[in-house]
Amino acid sequence: MTIEHKTGNGAGRVRLGMVGGGRDAFIGAVHRIASRIDDKYELVAGCFSSTPEKSRLSGADLGLAPDRVYGSFDEMAKREARLKNGIEAVAVVTPNHMHYLAARPFLQRGIHVICDKPLTSTLADARKLAALVEKSGALFILTHNYTGYPMIRQAREMVTSGELGNIRLIQVEYAQDWLTEATGQKQAGWRTDPARSGAGGSIGDIGTHAINLAGFVTGLSLEALSADLHTFVEGRQLDDNAHVLLRYSGGARGMLWSSQVAPGNENALRLRVYGSKGGLEWEQEEPNKLWYAPFGEPKQKLTRANTGVGEAANRVSRIPAGHPEGYLEGFANIYSEAAAAIRAVQAGKEIPPEVRFPTVRDGLDGMAFIDASVRSSSRNGAWVQVGHK
Amino acid sequence: MTIEHKTGNGAGRVRLGMVGGGRDAFIGAVHRIASRIDDKYELVAGCFSSTPEKSRLSGADLGLAPDRVYGSFDEMAKREARLKNGIEAVAVVTPNHMHYLAARPFLQRGIHVICDKPLTSTLADARKLAALVEKSGALFILTHNYTGYPMIRQAREMVTSGELGNIRLIQVEYAQDWLTEATGQKQAGWRTDPARSGAGGSIGDIGTHAINLAGFVTGLSLEALSADLHTFVEGRQLDDNAHVLLRYSGGARGMLWSSQVAPGNENALRLRVYGSKGGLEWEQEEPNKLWYAPFGEPKQKLTRANTGVGEAANRVSRIPAGHPEGYLEGFANIYSEAAAAIRAVQAGKEIPPEVRFPTVRDGLDGMAFIDASVRSSSRNGAWVQVGHK
Amino acid sequence: MTIEHKTGNGAGRVRLGMVGGGRDAFIGAVHRIASRIDDKYELVAGCFSSTPEKSRLSGADLGLAPDRVYGSFDEMAKREARLKNGIEAVAVVTPNHMHYLAARPFLQRGIHVICDKPLTSTLADARKLAALVEKSGALFILTHNYTGYPMIRQAREMVTSGELGNIRLIQVEYAQDWLTEATGQKQAGWRTDPARSGAGGSIGDIGTHAINLAGFVTGLSLEALSADLHTFVEGRQLDDNAHVLLRYSGGARGMLWSSQVAPGNENALRLRVYGSKGGLEWEQEEPNKLWYAPFGEPKQKLTRANTGVGEAANRVSRIPAGHPEGYLEGFANIYSEAAAAIRAVQAGKEIPPEVRFPTVRDGLDGMAFIDASVRSSSRNGAWVQVGHK
Amino acid sequence: MTIEHKTGNGAGRVRLGMVGGGRDAFIGAVHRIASRIDDKYELVAGCFSSTPEKSRLSGADLGLAPDRVYGSFDEMAKREARLKNGIEAVAVVTPNHMHYLAARPFLQRGIHVICDKPLTSTLADARKLAALVEKSGALFILTHNYTGYPMIRQAREMVTSGELGNIRLIQVEYAQDWLTEATGQKQAGWRTDPARSGAGGSIGDIGTHAINLAGFVTGLSLEALSADLHTFVEGRQLDDNAHVLLRYSGGARGMLWSSQVAPGNENALRLRVYGSKGGLEWEQEEPNKLWYAPFGEPKQKLTRANTGVGEAANRVSRIPAGHPEGYLEGFANIYSEAAAAIRAVQAGKEIPPEVRFPTVRDGLDGMAFIDASVRSSSRNGAWVQVGHK
Repeated sequence: MTIEHKTGNGAGRVRLGMVGGGRDAFIGAVHRIASRIDDKYELVAGCFSSTPEKSRLSGADLGLAPDRVYGSFDEMAKREARLKNGIEAVAVVTPNHMHYLAARPFLQRGIHVICDKPLTSTLADARKLAALVEKSGALFILTHNYTGYPMIRQAREMVTSGELGNIRLIQVEYAQDWLTEATGQKQAGWRTDPARSGAGGSIGDIGTHAINLAGFVTGLSLEALSADLHTFVEGRQLDDNAHVLLRYSGGARGMLWSSQVAPGNENALRLRVYGSKGGLEWEQEEPNKLWYAPFGEPKQKLTRANTGVGEAANRVSRIPAGHPEGYLEGFANIYSEAAAAIRAVQAGKEIPPEVRFPTVRDGLDGMAFIDASVRSSSRNGAWVQVGHK
Repeated sequence: MTIEHKTGNGAGRVRLGMVGGGRDAFIGAVHRIASRIDDKYELVAGCFSSTPEKSRLSGADLGLAPDRVYGSFDEMAKREARLKNGIEAVAVVTPNHMHYLAARPFLQRGIHVICDKPLTSTLADARKLAALVEKSGALFILTHNYTGYPMIRQAREMVTSGELGNIRLIQVEYAQDWLTEATGQKQAGWRTDPARSGAGGSIGDIGTHAINLAGFVTGLSLEALSADLHTFVEGRQLDDNAHVLLRYSGGARGMLWSSQVAPGNENALRLRVYGSKGGLEWEQEEPNKLWYAPFGEPKQKLTRANTGVGEAANRVSRIPAGHPEGYLEGFANIYSEAAAAIRAVQAGKEIPPEVRFPTVRDGLDGMAFIDASVRSSSRNGAWVQVGHK
Repeated sequence: MTIEHKTGNGAGRVRLGMVGGGRDAFIGAVHRIASRIDDKYELVAGCFSSTPEKSRLSGADLGLAPDRVYGSFDEMAKREARLKNGIEAVAVVTPNHMHYLAARPFLQRGIHVICDKPLTSTLADARKLAALVEKSGALFILTHNYTGYPMIRQAREMVTSGELGNIRLIQVEYAQDWLTEATGQKQAGWRTDPARSGAGGSIGDIGTHAINLAGFVTGLSLEALSADLHTFVEGRQLDDNAHVLLRYSGGARGMLWSSQVAPGNENALRLRVYGSKGGLEWEQEEPNKLWYAPFGEPKQKLTRANTGVGEAANRVSRIPAGHPEGYLEGFANIYSEAAAAIRAVQAGKEIPPEVRFPTVRDGLDGMAFIDASVRSSSRNGAWVQVGHK
Repeated sequence: MTIEHKTGNGAGRVRLGMVGGGRDAFIGAVHRIASRIDDKYELVAGCFSSTPEKSRLSGADLGLAPDRVYGSFDEMAKREARLKNGIEAVAVVTPNHMHYLAARPFLQRGIHVICDKPLTSTLADARKLAALVEKSGALFILTHNYTGYPMIRQAREMVTSGELGNIRLIQVEYAQDWLTEATGQKQAGWRTDPARSGAGGSIGDIGTHAINLAGFVTGLSLEALSADLHTFVEGRQLDDNAHVLLRYSGGARGMLWSSQVAPGNENALRLRVYGSKGGLEWEQEEPNKLWYAPFGEPKQKLTRANTGVGEAANRVSRIPAGHPEGYLEGFANIYSEAAAAIRAVQAGKEIPPEVRFPTVRDGLDGMAFIDASVRSSSRNGAWVQVGHK
């Protein structure tokens, strides 16, 4: 087990900026903590709100130099690109509809982007963003943070090495209950607003995490789906529940359930994968465990940093078995992978193959998934192909 | 809590016969144990196999008088109906395709039938059987035994009394792994043979249990479904996995997953029901617990025979909380309910409203569910109405 | 897996009588159900209460012939011993202080005794009873029912076969909460009364189960203990909580906790055994699971009737994995073992070595344990030897 | 729920130094991560090893200025105290026997000390250290990190507010398995060496965490104990297992088990507290849950940041329910509390009452606990008073 994840800072901390994430924002704070855990970043600039005064106050809260706090991301990109010690990467943590616009000026200047999910609010924006990334040569890291959990790395490694045989079944779900009733909560505001969130409600906000996780672990491509999206709470404009049947390349089939109206579910992302030789089961709320059932043998409880767990998981673990790592450490792993990639790129080297993070491609897949789900559901669950090419 | 379930035998034990269930049969032995637990039955006759010699040996194993052991069920029905102390009820525990034929001669003579599920192997047989039951005036009890679990009774009572508000979501699944590979096992023989099992594989054998349980707890009617049945093991003739989307009367939606190829799953029947005011979660493998999540309050662990559990559950409990009751006790509850109904009918009384058991109607619903699933799947998951009327 | 436990009744059902266990008694009903499950017994006589009228009513409830229902156990023993088809065995289910007196007349007539635990209310009575058993030649089965659970048999087999290496640690506990407050409940009446229960409160009622289970699984002898018994509820005469340190033959050490005042604990008997090569963990409330941790390998979840479980467990299992067996089935296993032993003895054969049940020796061990605990506690936890020889 | 714990850095980050914690050390890395999570500290100096070259390399790994990396802690204290921007606090993360010597020069210069546990290797050192702290006026924070978990704060709040009634029982245990066999591991080296670790093996290394946690949650003082310490692995000099009976002020009783030879246990710290009105159960490996059993009501699962959880827990939570926080976040809470206290003291203000952290007093209690355990065990478990005054 690696004690202190990736000790040593190579060329020093990555100078990081942030767009969005001002006072009261949830995910901005998560990104900041994640960036600090392994000491690979230093937050030095930000445009925390489109209201300059709010941005200024948030920057002060965070101890930033006043001249590195901006009222617009365009201005920020422009100035930071010219500074001698300007930011090397920017975290984009705005609502979805701003991701493309906020990322653009940085990408255009070759500044690496770490962006929250889903990629954008429309498939059209997603395509433009993907094209821009390709052109820019900058890295684009999408924070599908659940792929950072060590036991998810372990699951992927086991599938890849054939321990499960041919994958047949993928049962994935992501259930929450915070939208069971109409609510005036700030987070609920934009996440249920098509203008800011996009065409998907639960399917976009959490269904994309679920489908991404399934793809990450199994390495399979989703080929077609049949979706039944529904809104249970009156007056809500986007789905708050989604039932989706899945067909994967290679013949695997699956089910995806996303819901924000399932009382008693907090953040219940759960993945089960079954193959011809064995099964795996994992739940996000107890992330240090992975159940492994080799067919015909007793079920095993694999635990982070303990025996039976391989290098893919161990390299993103920090502390010994039984000392639970959580959501923030999983998120930090994405940040640390990003830092490793940034340093490699800056040094003109290949990104080491073990360094893994979701990219703009994963983001496009997610947007195509939302798009296909909405189309299928509007055609009463007809099977539709999923593809963005 | 009731200590010893339904003490007192009223008019004495019900004289029971059995068709099927000879040596090596699994479910026949289960029925016999279930009939004994509460001392409401005495097994006095049987036709345990279509091979007379085998039937004779099984009868001897069970200590029956030789003249009450038969080589054909027709002969058994004929003679038992004429005996002064002939059987009052018969348990039909043959493979599915024989249910109708085996039950018929008994029903025609007014002998009550307790029959294993699914009802028959074809919807046509099911309809004939239902008509015959109606005409006979005899009781027909279908052993969807999972409805006998106390905490399932509790769940039903909570839904009925409105504690969950309007039901929105039903997530039900029944996963096993015993057919992960091709197997020569006796049970697998008939259960994967369309001639004996019917058009449904996993969807018939276990999917019907799942859909019945969902209907029992919520009281809702399944209106339409979209199914994706699949056979993963080469050479198998029936589905070994089924993914089904559900639409219920009143607007609830759901998902059903049945599988016999999910390694690590033993008998994993799991029901989750979510309404506008709360959620319930139950797993068959830990049947004495029911999770109750009133929206906005901490989740509660309700346990059999403990505080917070009502009369509907308590009347089918035998022993104190923490002393686990299991599968056989749940099954016995169906038998004891049947005995209560038989005694009521014999006395010319109404069956008390709290006495609950699945009937031929439930059996028809199950056959209609299989039929609809097969039809939908053959049409690539088109939504089809579910109805047997 | 054995389907239907021990099919075949050999020389027919054992004719059983019962002393105690009238209306409202908890454990009498449990014994009756346990005797029926495997169809090895027929209840034909009883003295259900010391009040003849109550005894008569209970006998009628149970469908017994009126002339086989008695008002005194002496009369019952006398008459049954003379009947051609008199009882072959008697179940003694009275409060503890009557065990010796009730068992005596039957033992004196060579009638086998199945007796609830603890053995008696005093060590003196226990010794007399043991002497009487020896003299009588009859079998004496003590219903430490938890030793009947299949996964407990599995645990014993694993320890015996050396899979755990040298046993070092035994952590056993039995916690309940039903005596958290003073209560007028009938069960509480005699169980907290030294005259009827003996010198031990929780230590006698449940502590003896715990220590018996530890000994059954490990095969080790308890040599010495240091106890801290305490009564938390004012006015109660017996301990409602016990903390005991244990030293076993061979150098193993342990802890035992019994409590009836631990809110949230229903019937929480839990055994953990650790050796130089591995550990085992088991909880009574989920009895079909046994956790096995071979040192240096992933923890395994062994489940009843599934792979990885051996013959000692399988021979006392009835139904497939995932179909939970519970408390009553575990209890029934003791009854079925007793029946096998009775039939062997009657046939002049050795009791087969795989047939296991607690005897009067175990009962003496239990009484010695209570006695030692009370002595140690009265001497402020001084270490005392445990021995009844 | 507070999003981003304690946003705003007041007078900027606390300048932190570290003694110990060089390459390969486990706990040093933990302290560093914990100090970064909430952005309240900046590591600016260190003496990471008593070998100057090793210290230098570790400092370089961590990106420290070379002139702030020292080869002796005396030199470090001297120089840092004179620097204009010298450290304000130092983390002492050496083996136990060096805690006193390492902390001394900093305390003598008024530099606040954050020190790993147990306090020292001898009770004599502990007393000297306590006296020194008192004299210095500097803060001394002992990282009994488990008191930082939000649900432990919740438990304490519930006990304090009387929800459990009078506390009767404390069952606490801390089991590991990493010393099941003799091992050459670096951590095992000093932790099983009396010269560096002190007189307690498991009782010192993990037993002190357990007893501290019990005291923190219940607020009760341990008055007396009876201990049975044992060494199972041949050649080991310190106990690897401890069984302890506990008596608390106010009449509560308890049991403590610490073990490093219990296969299958990773870091299994578990606390159960029972009072006259209810019970609480918590396990470190799933720290976001707290089981609450109000007597006579269903058991509740309280979860971090969700309904039913109060301000004491919420103020040390960062992210929403269902997003697991872990060991590092709990540890970070101690660091953040320390920072709040440091800033208050520097400003001449009272430390706010809600700010909680273990102090040198807790450290003395822990040393007295080790001392009493060793004394009791050497007198064959005689009850001894626990007190350091």
